Amino acid sequence: MKQITSRDNALYKELKQLAASASARKKAGKTILDGVHLCQAFLQHRAAPEICVVSDHCIEHAEVAEILARCEKQGAQSISLPENLYQALSQVENGIGVLFVIATPQLEMPLTLSVNAVVLDNLQDPGNLGSILRSAAGAGITQVYCSVGSASAWSPKVLRAGMGAHFLLEIFEGVNLHALLSDATIPILATSSHTKTTIYQSDLNRPVAWLFGHEGQGVDPELMAMANETVTIPQTAEIESLNVAASAAICFFEQVRQQIVAKE
Amino acid sequence: MKQITSRDNALYKELKQLAASASARKKAGKTILDGVHLCQAFLQHRAAPEICVVSDHCIEHAEVAEILARCEKQGAQSISLPENLYQALSQVENGIGVLFVIATPQLEMPLTLSVNAVVLDNLQDPGNLGSILRSAAGAGITQVYCSVGSASAWSPKVLRAGMGAHFLLEIFEGVNLHALLSDATIPILATSSHTKTTIYQSDLNRPVAWLFGHEGQGVDPELMAMANETVTIPQTAEIESLNVAASAAICFFEQVRQQIVAKE
Repeated sequence: MKQITSRDNALYKELKQLAASASARKKAGKTILDGVHLCQAFLQHRAAPEICVVSDHCIEHAEVAEILARCEKQGAQSISLPENLYQALSQVENGIGVLFVIATPQLEMPLTLSVNAVVLDNLQDPGNLGSILRSAAGAGITQVYCSVGSASAWSPKVLRAGMGAHFLLEIFEGVNLHALLSDATIPILATSSHTKTTIYQSDLNRPVAWLFGHEGQGVDPELMAMANETVTIPQTAEIESLNVAASAAICFFEQVRQQIVAKE
Repeated sequence: MKQITSRDNALYKELKQLAASASARKKAGKTILDGVHLCQAFLQHRAAPEICVVSDHCIEHAEVAEILARCEKQGAQSISLPENLYQALSQVENGIGVLFVIATPQLEMPLTLSVNAVVLDNLQDPGNLGSILRSAAGAGITQVYCSVGSASAWSPKVLRAGMGAHFLLEIFEGVNLHALLSDATIPILATSSHTKTTIYQSDLNRPVAWLFGHEGQGVDPELMAMANETVTIPQTAEIESLNVAASAAICFFEQVRQQIVAKE
C-alpha cells in the first residue's frame, strides 16, 4: 500500500479534484464511492475499484481491512492518507475512512425499451434520484433512463442516497427520451392528478416504463403526451402532490403487489 | 407597508437571525415560510402570519400582490426589502420573493394515541421528514409524533420539503415515544426485514400508528419491542432496504388502497 502524506502529491491533488468537482469527474470518467457500505456493495456486485483510499486511522478496522484485502487480491491500487488529508476528500461525516475511485460505468443503450424500466425526465434532486434508484432496485426493476439535464446518477451524493442500488441497475444517462419512448415496445405509464384511473385499477402485472419528471414542473408536456396511460395515486383533496421519490416508490410497489397477487 | 433599506435595521437583523439559526428560531418560537407556495398554503389552511416580507422586485407580481393584500386585510405586518437584502434571508434559489414569519405552532399532546398516526424515532434528514409529512397528509393521516432528537419539523428545510403538508397535520415534537406508545389504544406497526408478514397481508383497514426510525440505525430496539406487529415490504433479495421516506409512502398508500377496497 502506498502512503501519501503531502497535500502537494499529484495523485492526492487528482483525488481532491474528483471529490470536489462534477466536471473533473466527468472529464476523467471516474467517480467516488464514499464509505464502507458502498465499497462493500461494489465489491459484491461489480468488481475491484481502480483505487482504494483509506484513512490511516482506519486501516485496522475489520471491515476496512477486509475491503483492502479484497482490493489487493484483485490488483487494485491502494493508498493510505493521514486522517486530515482523508477528511478533505470524504463527504461522509463521522464515517469509517474508506473510499473507492471507480470508472463511471458507461452502458450501451438497448435498441428498444422493452423491459420494466424507470424513465426520468429532468429530475433535479440527488436525494430523490438516489431514493428512486433504491426503490427501483428493491422492486426488481432493472433499467433506469435519465434525460439530459437530470441529476448525475453517479455523483457521490446520488451514490450515497442510492446505498448500492446503482450496482444492481443498468443506468443510462443523457438519454433522448423522445426517441426512447417513440420506440418503446411496452406501455409507458405516468402519474397525473388529472386522471381518474388509480394505480390500483391499472393492470401493473406486466412490464411497463414508469415516467417521472422534474420536482417542480413535472414531466415535459411533449413526453407526457407519449404516455400510453396516466394513473393517479388517490390522495386527500387538500394536498397538491407527493414528493416524486415517494410517488415512484408507491407505483413500483403497487406493481410488486399485483405481481405477488397474480402468482398466488 | 414598511420599507427597510439598511442592513443595520434592528428588525432586519432579527429576520436574518431567524433565517440562519435554528437556535434563534427556537428561542423566538418563530419560523420562516419561504416562497409563494408555502405562504399561500398557510393563508389557506391556517391564518395570517406575524410578518409578510417581500422583495421590492416582486411587489407587483400577481401572486405576491394577492398574498400581501390578504395579509394586510388580516392585520399582519408587511415589510419590503431591496432584492439584495431579501436574498440574504431566502434559501429558495430563483424564487419569487415572498416569505412569512410565523409563530411555530405548539400543540398540546392528546392524552392517548388513538387515531391513525405516524411516529418518528430520531429521524435525521430534513428532506425525508418533509417527504413523510407530505405522504402522510396525502394519505389522510392527521397526527405525527416526533421524538426528541428528530429533525425539527418546522425548520425552513423541512417546511420546503413538506410543501404545505404541515398545515394539514397535527405535529407533536420532542415527544417521549416510550410513554406515547405505552398508552396507545391502536396497534403500533413497524417495518422490519426480519418478519414474513408483508404489508399486503396485514390488515390496514383500521387506524394504526406507523413507527419509523433513524436513517442508519432504524427504530430504537426498546421502542421496536413495543410494536404490536412488524411488517415487511417485499423486496428483491440483493438490496438492503428502502429509503425511510419511500418505505413510509408505500405503507401509507397500502393503507389507502385497503381502505378503498373495503369501501367497494
